[in-house]
Formats: sequence, structure tokens, C-alpha cells
Amino acid sequence: MKTPVTVLGLGAMGSALARAFQAAGHPTTVWNRTPGRAPELEGVTRAATALEAVNASPLVVVCLLVDATVRSTLNGLDLTGRAVVNLTNGTPAQARDTAAWATAAGAEYLDGGIMAVPAMIGGPAAFIFYSGSPVAFERHQADLAAMARPAYVGSDPGLAALHDIALLSAMYGMFGGAQHALALTGSEKISPIRFTEDFLLPWLTAMLSSLPRIAKDLEEGPEPGAAGSNLAMQAAAYDNLLDTSVGQGVDPALLTPMGDLLRKAVAAGHGDEDLAAVVGLLRTGS
Amino acid sequence: MKTPVTVLGLGAMGSALARAFQAAGHPTTVWNRTPGRAPELEGVTRAATALEAVNASPLVVVCLLVDATVRSTLNGLDLTGRAVVNLTNGTPAQARDTAAWATAAGAEYLDGGIMAVPAMIGGPAAFIFYSGSPVAFERHQADLAAMARPAYVGSDPGLAALHDIALLSAMYGMFGGAQHALALTGSEKISPIRFTEDFLLPWLTAMLSSLPRIAKDLEEGPEPGAAGSNLAMQAAAYDNLLDTSVGQGVDPALLTPMGDLLRKAVAAGHGDEDLAAVVGLLRTGS
Repeated sequence: MKTPVTVLGLGAMGSALARAFQAAGHPTTVWNRTPGRAPELEGVTRAATALEAVNASPLVVVCLLVDATVRSTLNGLDLTGRAVVNLTNGTPAQARDTAAWATAAGAEYLDGGIMAVPAMIGGPAAFIFYSGSPVAFERHQADLAAMARPAYVGSDPGLAALHDIALLSAMYGMFGGAQHALALTGSEKISPIRFTEDFLLPWLTAMLSSLPRIAKDLEEGPEPGAAGSNLAMQAAAYDNLLDTSVGQGVDPALLTPMGDLLRKAVAAGHGDEDLAAVVGLLRTGS
Repeated sequence: MKTPVTVLGLGAMGSALARAFQAAGHPTTVWNRTPGRAPELEGVTRAATALEAVNASPLVVVCLLVDATVRSTLNGLDLTGRAVVNLTNGTPAQARDTAAWATAAGAEYLDGGIMAVPAMIGGPAAFIFYSGSPVAFERHQADLAAMARPAYVGSDPGLAALHDIALLSAMYGMFGGAQHALALTGSEKISPIRFTEDFLLPWLTAMLSSLPRIAKDLEEGPEPGAAGSNLAMQAAAYDNLLDTSVGQGVDPALLTPMGDLLRKAVAAGHGDEDLAAVVGLLRTGS
């Protein structure tokens, strides 16, 4: 028999997770604070209380609305011997707090970051970062794969949220740049569909190939003279971006911080380096 | 015989352009304000003055340091019957000014935006946006292809610079997001090379596939209820990104404007829409 699994929380994501476990043949128990949620879920056991739900399975997946709800839901329950896998959105600091507290309550704790929207759960493109108890991960890696491809990133329970949030930050940067580009071209009534297909998508796809070089510069130090276009040149040319935004009636808000960073990098003596130098400037201290 | 071409300006980019024309068999005349630049260029004619250089060819490619230099270099010259192709970095407003002035001096004027660093000129990945005189573009399209694949985007001479700057804006957004992600993971000593190869690059490549949907929402209006993760949810979850930055000792400067825009979009009643709604908020008036 496959490992019995409990899913706490039946929002859009929790329901998708429960459905994936049930579909993969796991005896699946579900619980939600407000009863009656996800009536479409078939073949699952609905627990009346969180206590009953937790006691039903050695593997307890938690997917609630916010971090505070995790604590209030599991408070006072004996988690001894259970693997608690918390997939609720949160920060690395919250994950570390929850890990300390759940471990004290007897759990083997894993924190997770889901890199997917609910519709992608159980499909090939989704993956989930995990960090925390290596024991729990080894024991349940195959079970967790029913939801999405698991990627274990370390025993510090904050690392899954850190990876999750790092990727979301990168995504919002990319979307922000694309949104600014679409606002600029929109100011001249250029078709968003044509601009995106003909230019924006091929261009960003090509530019992605620069990322490994930036990573290499960061890890091994910049190669002297290797910058394709050094930061001093980039900082000077960046004014054209800001001036064009203003001239075309587009708010330059999304562009401004990069201009500030490029100037700061040049002022700090990195004018002959490339974009990796900006990463160091972002570290305010740790 | 191939069309004789003149290149004004022998900086890194101008030299690469001249080399590409010469290599493609065009009789190539070059000029630079400071003599003796690009001594490695062979098989080209070096003109002593801008007047001599302009008179040598029906196709004059201008690649100077800044916009102001274009005017001071061509000032007073008779450009009648010549195609002047200005590839100097500039804004749409500068391109429109230069077009008006060069046209008054008799030129068929094309403005261009080079989407490449000098090393890519003459290679398959480079392309150049052109806008302005359709006559000049039709006449010289094949000649211009010696430098890079030409992409003509309209008769308004500002459109090439607009497309150029839109793509650069998108690129800086993407790089900024990646830099923030690398600063976050760097705060826990995660290998930049491993993180980029294993997660950052595959993730951003996957997320790029959302751009056509954003463009479609913009062009055709949002599909009700189709948002994978609506702006209200995204605005709430965005606080985790900001909190994590601060908690890990990373300056949230690159993330802040998007958080402001998401909240502004929700406040303006777009909470049930997706990222296309942010584009409209960027338009401050035109």
C-alpha cells in the first residue's frame, strides 16, 4: 500500500495537492478549517478535526493561507514520528521558526516552496523546493513526487523558501521589464502580440544565455577585459532608456533602480566590469 | 559592383560595421574625427574630412558616440540624394529631430538601433531595427544586411529607437531580477553557477512562455477568470519577497516598484486580472 497522506487546507492549491495524492493511489485524508470545501474531491477521507487528520497519516502536508495559520492549526498536537511538510507560502525566517517549533512537537519537518500554479500540480512542468529534515525527505521523496518533481536544497529549513522567493524575484524582474517594453511600444500603438512574437520573446530568450556568464563572474571573479559592454558604457547609455520613457509618457518607475545601481557601481570603481558587479552592491549586510 | 558605403565613426561599433561592409565586398570609405583610429582595418579608403567621406558613397552609415555629434559632424554638408543611416545610440525624440534636419539637407534618412555588441556584427544573431524613409530602406536593404539582419519597423523615424529601447528595458528588467535572485541565494553561500544552471535559467525559460498570454490580454482585453494567479493574490504574496530581502540583508530596491504597481493595480480595481493590467498603469499620459 502507498503511504497514507494527510493534506491540511483545501484552497485551490491544497485541493490540487490532495487530488494528486489520491490520483497516485495514496490513501488521502483531508481537512479544512471551514468544512465543505473542494466538494469535487472524490475518494478522500474528510477528517472532522485537525487532530483526526494528523493522526490518520505518517505524512502530513500543510498548505494553508498564511504562515500564522500553520501554527494555530497544529498548536497542541503531538507530531511525534510524523513527517510534516509545510507548503504554505512564507519567508525563510518563518520556515526556520516553524521548523524549530514543529521539531519540538516531535515532527520531522520539511519546508517547501511550490513552483507552480494549482493547474500544473501532478504535471511535468511543476516542481517543489524542499529543505529541512533529510530523514523525512529520504523517507518520503517518492511520495512527494505525486505532487510535483521534488528538489531538495539543504537541511536549513529556510532554504526552500529562499530558492522559491529568489526565482519569483527573477520572474517579476523579467515580467516588469516586459511590461515596461509593452508600455513603451503601446505608446505608439504597436501591436503587443506582434511585438512580443517578433521581437520581445526571441530577444529575451537570446539574452538569457548571458546568465551563466554573470554567474561565473560572480563565483570566480570577473575576467579582466571580458565585459562585452562594460558598466561605465551601460550607465551612460541607460539615460536614453529613462529619457525615452518620460518622452513617450511611460512611468520609468520600473527602470529607475537599475539606473541608480549602474551609477553606484561605476562610482564604486566597477566601471570596467560587467553586470555581476551589481549583485555585490545589493548586499546591504548579512 | 556592390554599393559603395561610407562609415562615419570608428569606435568599437563603427569599426565592426566598416569591417563587415568591407568583408562583404562593398567599396568602403571610413572617417573618424580623431585620425588613426582602427588601424587594423584593411582594404578601406580613409577620408580626410567628413565632406570627402560623405561624397564618396550613396550610402552613408553614421555611428558616432552621442546624438549631438551627429549634427555637428554633418552640419553644412549637402546630403542630396544620399541615404543617411544613423546608428548612433539615441532616443526616439532625437531620431525624429535628426530625421527632420537631415531630410531638409536632402537626405533619405533612416534611423537604426543595433541589437548586438560589436563582436556580433556580421554574425547570425545580430539584428538592426530601422525606421524612416521606406525608399532608402528598399534601396539599401540588401546592403545593410552585410552588418546584421535588418528589421524595418515603420516610417516614423523614432520607431527604431523605440523598439531598441523597449528591448533594452526588458533585458535590464530580466537581468535585474536575476541579479536580485543571485544576491538572495548568495546571502546563504549558494553557488551562483549551480543555482543558475539548475534553477534560474530553466525557470526563466519556462516563465517566458507567459509573455504571449500577457500580450494577448493587452491586445484583446483580459479573459474574465482566466488569470492563473490574480493580481490581488500576487500583491499579497509579494510582501514575502520584500520581507525576505530585508531579512537576508539584500537591498529590495529592484523589487520595490513592482510591489507598488501591484498594490496600485488592486486599488484601481484590477485585482481579478493578471499582469497585463500593470502595463496600463505605466502609461502616465501621451
